[in-house]
Amino acid sequence: MTQERRVVLNSCEINAQEPAATHVIGADIGGTNLRLGLADGEGMMLGKWSTSIMRTRDAESVVRLMRKGVDALLREASLPRDALGAIAAGAPGITNVDKGVVIATSYLMGWRDVPLRDLLEAEFKAPAAVDNDVNLAAIGERRAGVAQGEDDFVFLAIGTGIGAGIVMNGQIHRGSIWTAGEIGYMLVPGTSEAPVERGEPGALEGIVGGEGIRNQWQKRWREDLTTLAKDATATEVFNHALESNALAQEVLELAARTLAYAIYNISLILNSPLFVLGGSVGIHPALGDAVRQVLGQRQVRVQPKLARSALGVDAQLVGAICLAIETANKKLASPSS
Amino acid sequence: MTQERRVVLNSCEINAQEPAATHVIGADIGGTNLRLGLADGEGMMLGKWSTSIMRTRDAESVVRLMRKGVDALLREASLPRDALGAIAAGAPGITNVDKGVVIATSYLMGWRDVPLRDLLEAEFKAPAAVDNDVNLAAIGERRAGVAQGEDDFVFLAIGTGIGAGIVMNGQIHRGSIWTAGEIGYMLVPGTSEAPVERGEPGALEGIVGGEGIRNQWQKRWREDLTTLAKDATATEVFNHALESNALAQEVLELAARTLAYAIYNISLILNSPLFVLGGSVGIHPALGDAVRQVLGQRQVRVQPKLARSALGVDAQLVGAICLAIETANKKLASPSS
Repeated sequence: MTQERRVVLNSCEINAQEPAATHVIGADIGGTNLRLGLADGEGMMLGKWSTSIMRTRDAESVVRLMRKGVDALLREASLPRDALGAIAAGAPGITNVDKGVVIATSYLMGWRDVPLRDLLEAEFKAPAAVDNDVNLAAIGERRAGVAQGEDDFVFLAIGTGIGAGIVMNGQIHRGSIWTAGEIGYMLVPGTSEAPVERGEPGALEGIVGGEGIRNQWQKRWREDLTTLAKDATATEVFNHALESNALAQEVLELAARTLAYAIYNISLILNSPLFVLGGSVGIHPALGDAVRQVLGQRQVRVQPKLARSALGVDAQLVGAICLAIETANKKLASPSS
Repeated sequence: MTQERRVVLNSCEINAQEPAATHVIGADIGGTNLRLGLADGEGMMLGKWSTSIMRTRDAESVVRLMRKGVDALLREASLPRDALGAIAAGAPGITNVDKGVVIATSYLMGWRDVPLRDLLEAEFKAPAAVDNDVNLAAIGERRAGVAQGEDDFVFLAIGTGIGAGIVMNGQIHRGSIWTAGEIGYMLVPGTSEAPVERGEPGALEGIVGGEGIRNQWQKRWREDLTTLAKDATATEVFNHALESNALAQEVLELAARTLAYAIYNISLILNSPLFVLGGSVGIHPALGDAVRQVLGQRQVRVQPKLARSALGVDAQLVGAICLAIETANKKLASPSS
């Protein structure tokens, strides 16, 4: 259990009116892992806990795993269960934040209309909130990462899937039915034009997402041209490109060009001054450098600034803790609701 | 001189405190034509005037032509010059609405940093305002066209150039340096990937814009395969497609598919529920129908509604009149400013 960075601004601190419920949990429900963070009311991370949910697909089982993790975190911090002022979770999919319902997750989880907020409140007897994980990562970067003080920017989460958290005038833009930022399906030169079935990766994900990069590598792989295994991960392929392997460079350049086109398109539409690259694939320095090079060759009145996520894989967790503190304070402000 | 539709809501009426300045002028400065509309304080269009500005490129000359048109409109309506409560103009380019400066226009005009608001106030001795013409068209459609009551929609102006007027939460989204909606450069499958020099048409415009459609027609044209001239306009090509000419249908289908991809991309990013097709090319019914067909084949959680501009080529003018009435009222509210 380590003391980590203070994640939130003073304005986010839990109000001290109810001294019992002084801590919060932030949760990041990913396609493959469940990650939890325990923080005090000032946003200081007191501990983290994670587990694989590769074989745990239904929401009830995920909530039961969260119970296990929360209890472990509270125990290690010598806190009672009623120390929990609120819990907030990010889900990898389209989320109605008003109703607290995860409408649909990506092809990895297959959730449909899961009332996650109600499930969490029933399990933890504490106020709960849910949001899309990429939106939470954007909130995290804005509060404690590379986008501090930025009212207009786009956070790009590039892992297995690809999503955007769009901040405009200091607010997350969620769209008319909560699907804003679902850019994994974007069509740019080079992507497949074939219609995508629900549950399949999108056109952009097929080239820039983690699995897409693996596929591109496998398509090109030849034993005599590389020392890297055929089933290498995206990160390994990018590292190999930095070692000047021509095959790996080809895959990196394809991903970078395609991602640069997507950023260019978003930039034309929104005129956002800053793009933050996050997610396990997005934070690789080789990708950012290669994207910058492609963007630099284009005539754009606005060359958006590209920055690497400062919080890395913790961005979602930090955003969830911010949301949990906000939720705890709302409860304190109107305890009857 | 004809009495035309009442264009604005009551909330936009000129306040009657200053009875002399009871009328406004809205101006639409296009790449090829200058169009003016005279309206009373309730937004009733009293007269329209237009002239070619194909050979009039500099802003001072355009303002002198506006003087001529305004005088003609006032004369025909038997109004004195001091009846002018305000004037507002839409310019075909990137416009800083706070400073009243046209930062850059498309390749047709070549304006750079033109202080248009100051020029208009000096010429007309009345408060003036300027905005991007596509933004004004979006305002026009929202006040008096097909987007009435809509707080979230995208107006697509498709003529020689292509631009988007983005309305979110009832406000025009202008971007950090006023370039939001400059989608003529968007990259989708099938568009050229070659970097575009300043002053050249963008990738999307090369296939979906009026000149792009003419070029696509000329590339395919063969005397034995069509009765339509090689130098036909985009509208003529689309009409010819409706007459079942295979060459023209090929051009229409290419434009429709490319435009559908652009709409799909914008929709993924913004999750806007409504797209309004406007501009001389955009209002052609054959284009809208063909775009709908392509969009229908794609898996989108949100199938945005497509609607044809109700105001047609008047959308910009109606938006300019709305802005002029707003400007007149601001002046009345704080006469010293």
